[in-house]
Formats: sequence, C-alpha cells, structure tokens
Amino acid sequence: MRVLVPFDACRPKTRLSPVLSESERHDFARRLLADVLSALTETAHDPTVLANGSVEADVPVQIDEQPLTQAVNAALPDSKGELPIAIVMADLGLATADALEGLFVAGRSRNVDVAIVPGIGGGTNALVVDHPGFQVDYHGVSYRDHREHARDLGATVETVDSYRLSVDIDDPSDLPELLLHGRGTARTWLHEAGFAVGEAGTRRIDLTRAESDRGP
Amino acid sequence: MRVLVPFDACRPKTRLSPVLSESERHDFARRLLADVLSALTETAHDPTVLANGSVEADVPVQIDEQPLTQAVNAALPDSKGELPIAIVMADLGLATADALEGLFVAGRSRNVDVAIVPGIGGGTNALVVDHPGFQVDYHGVSYRDHREHARDLGATVETVDSYRLSVDIDDPSDLPELLLHGRGTARTWLHEAGFAVGEAGTRRIDLTRAESDRGP
Repeated sequence: MRVLVPFDACRPKTRLSPVLSESERHDFARRLLADVLSALTETAHDPTVLANGSVEADVPVQIDEQPLTQAVNAALPDSKGELPIAIVMADLGLATADALEGLFVAGRSRNVDVAIVPGIGGGTNALVVDHPGFQVDYHGVSYRDHREHARDLGATVETVDSYRLSVDIDDPSDLPELLLHGRGTARTWLHEAGFAVGEAGTRRIDLTRAESDRGP
Repeated sequence: MRVLVPFDACRPKTRLSPVLSESERHDFARRLLADVLSALTETAHDPTVLANGSVEADVPVQIDEQPLTQAVNAALPDSKGELPIAIVMADLGLATADALEGLFVAGRSRNVDVAIVPGIGGGTNALVVDHPGFQVDYHGVSYRDHREHARDLGATVETVDSYRLSVDIDDPSDLPELLLHGRGTARTWLHEAGFAVGEAGTRRIDLTRAESDRGP
C-alpha cells in the first residue's frame, strides 16, 4: 500500500514556539518524521514524504507547495486501481509498527472503505482510503467531517482505536506523552534538550527543562 | 476475573467545576460509571464498584472510606489464587467491551504479570494485576511509578494501546472527546445539558454550551 506522510518543511511545529526555538522546532520535527518513517518501514508498506519544501529522507519525497489539504487531495489517486492509500501524519511520535499495522489491517478489510484514526481534539491523525471519491479536509473538527463526507459518499468507515496513533506531538502539553511513551529519536532529542516529566499529579503533568539546555 | 471499579461518591469530578454545578457533577459521574459498568457487563467479567460512599448500581458495591490508593490496595487479594484482578476507573467514558476485552486478554496472557493502560497525562486508567505483591499508587505520574514498581518486583508488564481506554473524562478539555466518540448515557447527558463541539480547528477543540441549559 502507498503511504503518504505529509510534512511541513517550511514552518514546522509552530505551536511548540513557547518552548522551542525555530531551529529547534525544525530539528525536532525532522526527528518526529524520521521516527514515523522508521515505524512505517518496519511494516510492509512504502512511505512517500509529501512535503511543501526540501527535506532529506531515506524514502521518496514528493514536493507540493500547496497547503496540506490541497496537497493531499492532489496526491490521492483518482482510480480504484491504485487504492487503498494511507495518509499518516509526520508528528505521530508514539507510532509503532504494531499500531500502524492495526490501521493497515482495518483499511484493507473488505467491508471498510475508509479507516480513520482520530486525533485527540477532533483531528485526523491517519487514514486508509479505499474509495475513489474520498477527499480530505484537515480544517476544523476533521474527524467528524471525514466521517460525514464518507457517509455522504456511501463509503463505510471504521475508526481505529490506538492511543499511540491518536496522540500527535503538536503543543507543549503533548511533550510528556512523548517522554513517557516514545521509543524513537525524537524522544531522545527531547531528553537531550533538557526536557523531563515532573512529579505533579495533575491531569496535564508538568514538564521541566534544564536551564542550561534552553535554546536561544 | 474480578473487576474493581473505584468510584468517588462524595466529591466526584471536581475538575469539571468550571463548567458543571455540584449536582450536575454528581449526575454526570453516575452516568460515566453506569457506562463503564455496562461495557464491563458486556464482557464476561464481574464488576464490583469500590466506593467511598453510598451509590446505586446494578452490580455489587463495596464501601471503603479510605482514599483511592489505600482502598484499592485493601481490596487487592493477597494470594495468587484470587488473581488476576482488574482495576478500571469509573470515568472511562469512551470504554467499549471490545477495548476492555483487549485489556483482559493482555492481562490473562501467561507472560504478563501486570497489564496497564496509561491515562493521557501520565496516570493509570486501568490495570490487570496477576502478581501477588503488586500494590497501586495513584499519586503523581502513576503510569511511570507502576512500571517501576512492577520492575522492582520482577513482574512483567504489558502496556495496552487503546485510545478509548486512555482518555478519562476528567476536565473540560476532555468533554469534546466524549461528545465525538462516546456511545453511552454520559454522552447523551452532556448533549442534553447543552454541550456541543464547536468548529474551531485548534488542537483543543472548543466546547460550547447553550445558555438556557446552564446550571446554577
């Protein structure tokens, strides 16, 4: 199965600007991408990075300078023969081959036209599309919108239940999830940048950063 | 397998006080509990509510007025014969029988002494314990602490990957998850109380409440 991994090479991870400098955000985003590609490569599928600018990767990179939604829709095949196709976000820092395989198995099922992994907060973290008319729209509460769009097309939907795929590393409150559950290079990067999980027993655990490691 | 469902009958869901009145929090917490018990009853296991005060339920209720950690430890069996035992939090509003069965299958595995479902934010949402020395401690970053405690005992641990079980309905930012993904009476209650998911495309989607439904 073809797997597209959209990646913002121009202004990655802007919501992390309260805790990371611009150059750090670029470094960290590339670590997250590398970890997602590594987990995908462990499955039997071939990832292609779909980027809006130049990016180094060990897999094919397809450049499209349009915004995310338009770039993904332009890359979706318009004939049934090339389906299914998967779209997996580049910031799923907890993704493992096992969790991704669960998505691909759901997406290849005969009775499923669209398999979807919701993001926490109503987004869409990953999709497997096996219906020729399906288009994405990542604006707003896209999980709900993608379900409604599938229903309008008469396409069947399965929601895939995976914490590892539903957590995207997007804002500072996500960093403790990566520190606690990550297994890849992004977790190591974050640790080496001085971040650690504190001891507070609140719902959103606190995050500490060693003063000496703070970026510019 | 015995399944304990700890429930705070005295001061439930205090972190929801910015959006729900005290009587609403009691009602809503009982709806969440009922949904968790309903999902458990669909599995082949027998839940017991472990409450710090009186609560009506269709399953046995065991009263222990101690704080959560002490009450659960007092209820854990001290002999291997009564194991495994599960502890499932009462506010897992997205729990389904399928997701819970995944936990129980992991917990019954020969090679697993402790199966654990992390909560978002470092907590522990559910456990299956099959090791006679294991004790819980729900304070702080309990997911990490439970793993360390198991390692100290020489007990093997498996972390169970389920978004439905890793989301607990604890503070206002969790309510959109229940509105989007819930299937039980707590979702209906919340909807009837006037809550809805807005259209914003932010990481934490906005939550609206109809003015006429606002509590005292």
